[in-house]
Parts: sequence; structure tokens; C-alpha cells
Amino acid sequence: MKIDVVISHEYITDEDLENKTVIIIDTLRATSVIVTAMMNGAEEILPVKEVEEATVYKERLGNKNIILGGERRGLKIQGFDLSNSPLEFVKEVVEGKTIIMTTTNGTRTMEKCSKADEIIIGSLLNGTAAGKRALKSERDILIVNSGTKGKFSTDDFITAGFIINSILEDGVHAELSDIADTALKLFRSNTDLNSALEGCYHFNYLRSIGLEDDLEYCLTKDLTDIVPILKDGRISV
Amino acid sequence: MKIDVVISHEYITDEDLENKTVIIIDTLRATSVIVTAMMNGAEEILPVKEVEEATVYKERLGNKNIILGGERRGLKIQGFDLSNSPLEFVKEVVEGKTIIMTTTNGTRTMEKCSKADEIIIGSLLNGTAAGKRALKSERDILIVNSGTKGKFSTDDFITAGFIINSILEDGVHAELSDIADTALKLFRSNTDLNSALEGCYHFNYLRSIGLEDDLEYCLTKDLTDIVPILKDGRISV
Repeated sequence: MKIDVVISHEYITDEDLENKTVIIIDTLRATSVIVTAMMNGAEEILPVKEVEEATVYKERLGNKNIILGGERRGLKIQGFDLSNSPLEFVKEVVEGKTIIMTTTNGTRTMEKCSKADEIIIGSLLNGTAAGKRALKSERDILIVNSGTKGKFSTDDFITAGFIINSILEDGVHAELSDIADTALKLFRSNTDLNSALEGCYHFNYLRSIGLEDDLEYCLTKDLTDIVPILKDGRISV
Repeated sequence: MKIDVVISHEYITDEDLENKTVIIIDTLRATSVIVTAMMNGAEEILPVKEVEEATVYKERLGNKNIILGGERRGLKIQGFDLSNSPLEFVKEVVEGKTIIMTTTNGTRTMEKCSKADEIIIGSLLNGTAAGKRALKSERDILIVNSGTKGKFSTDDFITAGFIINSILEDGVHAELSDIADTALKLFRSNTDLNSALEGCYHFNYLRSIGLEDDLEYCLTKDLTDIVPILKDGRISV
């Protein structure tokens, strides 16, 4: 079994996705939000690319039991119910609900990955469970980092390293690409994630707009065994 | 001053190159060959993309004092004088000569970078000198890794980390992109390059075809202060 990593949704090709189980990562914060919402009992999540799509979709579904969530520039979108803060997706708000979600990087990545055989939503919060689930598929694994503004983002890359580390933990043999091996090395030599992310642009941007609590939460490893799956445009467990 | 890294020639855009000093790296082995040839007194190196171009170019230049060098699949090209082994580019062979060179990854990268303001040829052999030269340009620095088969290659990435480390050594302040910061972290936590490259596909491929001596040589840090510059399709010092 092979494990490879793509560092930004900009770099994904259809060939990369062929016969692969994909794990999509957007640690800060889209996939952390999705894992949290599903952990807290959301029925399903419908990722869409554009803000307008989200509101039209909500109307089309009859508005009932629907929550709009997401961000632009890290902030809540006008008219939306929730921002992209995982801390807002608590049980009291999301249980039994359908969430329509749009974010700058994460939902774009999901669209780009649609041709993969299986699509798993991964984050630090569910890293080990996501890795084990991918392993069960017995396909080669492609970890797709959403990145920030089309570029490599350290938060996603170190999460990839954490997931690879989890996959290999039980003595599993895998053939790592050079970049997968580098992600693993980065994680293993920087297990204190806060200091590992000191130089990370997106981490520092979110800190600068007052989202320290989100950051602390998103850096929690293995909070849950929930593994959301994206299939036919819907995320469920 | 900013420092960024591109992990493969496949990912370079013209926008990336704007107002930049570029350092091109192909540690195994094109840029190591170039640095060695210039160190040993070659007059100039003319990188070309295709094998046919090289032979036509040689005839056009009148064949005198011209050496053909390069590789396909790591091996010498039929009819060429030298392969892509830096150990062949000794003083007795290259002094005063013009070398026409074609390699799988390195020369492609050079063509892709032609719009940069200044293009420096970097390797571990001249890493510190290459970094200091880029610093003197007072432009933002883009380190371009040639990669292997269009993909990230650990040998180039760790060389990028070494060069960034050299630039920062004298207390220079630079704004590192996430990926530049990651290259630096990788180098700093893996200063034994041989063990850092254990999982590297291209390193292992070259080892499998018997090129251990080349690998040992290419991993030598700061053998020389020579800084080859690519300008108008010619490399000289």
C-alpha cells in the first residue's frame, strides 16, 4: 500500500485520485468543523463552493432543519447561522440538523476530490480513526491538504504527518512517497504542535483575529473516533 | 525579504518568478554537476531540454571545445561525452570547455525559471555561497526544487532547508513561507543527510544503479564558493 500527500487543492489532478482512498484535511478549520458537527449529532453536511449556492440550496431544501455555516477571510458570512468556528457546532445547535457549509479552502478541495473512490474527512481531532478507516479500504491512500490560498499550509501538512504516523503505528508496512515521508518526519520531530506552527501563516492570521480558542481546540489529537465520509456531495458518518 | 520554495518545476508560475532572485536546485544531480564543472574551470554551460537539441547545438557551434553531458533515466546518453555524474567533470576534462547539458529534471526547471530577475544554481556543494549571493540581490528569494518526475524530491527539499539555514545564520531576518519554514525545520532536525534521505525515491534509485560515489559526493556541504549564474540561456560564473 502506498501513501502520498498533495500539498494544496491547486495541485490535485484526476490521475492522482484514480483508485485511491482520499483523506481531505483542512485543519484550520473546515475539516475540524465537520468532524465536530458529526460528533455532535448533525445529520449530514452539504459542502458548497459559493455563498450564493448555500442560500439557494437552503431554500430548495425547504429551509427546515437547515443550518448555514462557513467563512470568508476567516469570518462569519452575512446571513449565515454559524461561522467556521468548531466551537459553535455544539450538540444543542447541530443535533439532527443538515448543515450547508462553504469555506475558502476546504469545500473547494472537496469538489476537486470528487473522482476518488472513497473520501474521508480528516483532522487532528479524528486523525487516528481517519487513518485506520483509510487502511481498511485496502487501496492506496492519498492525503489531500487543502492549503491556504492555494499554497502549502503547515497545519495541514503536520496533520498529514500525524495521520501517517497513526497508520504505521501497528507495524503496518506502507510505501511512502518522498513528501509523505517528509510529513511524517516533520510530525515526529515536532510533536508539540503549538511550537511547530509558530511560523505558520494561517495559524498566525487566525490568532490575529482573536481565534485562539479555535486554534487550541483544532490542535487536539484524537478527540473522537468519528470518521465523516463524503459521498455524492454529502458528508455523513 | 521573503523566502519561498517551489517543490517541483511542474508548479512554477510566471507570477512566482516576478521580481525574484531564484535559486534552482537539482541536488541529484544536475546542479551538483554544474557547480562541479564551473569549479573545475569550465568556460560555460548551455542547458538544453532535448537530446536532439544538444547535438544540433554542438554542430552549430562548430564542435570545437564542446562537451556533451547529461542523462536519461540516470544513465549516459548515446553519443554524449559525459553522463550526469559530477565525478566525471574533472579539471582535465572540462577546463576551458563549453558544456552542452541535458537532464531529465534540472534543465527543464531552468527553462521554466527564465523570467526570474536573477537565476542562481544551487546545491549542497555550494549552498552557503549560493544563499549569500541571493541575499546580496536584495530581492525576495524563491528556491525552486527541480523534483523528480514532476514530484517533490527530498534531496532537493533538504538542500533548500540547508540554504535557508545558511541565509539566516548571520542573524538575517527573513519572512519564510510555510513551506520554506518546513524545509528549514526538516534540515535542522536531520543534519545527517544520509539518514534523512533513506526514504527518498530518487536517492534510492541512483543507489540501485550503482551510483553510491555520486551520492556521497553530492551530499558534501560547502565544498566550494563558486556560484554559477544562469543568464540568457548560459551558465557562467
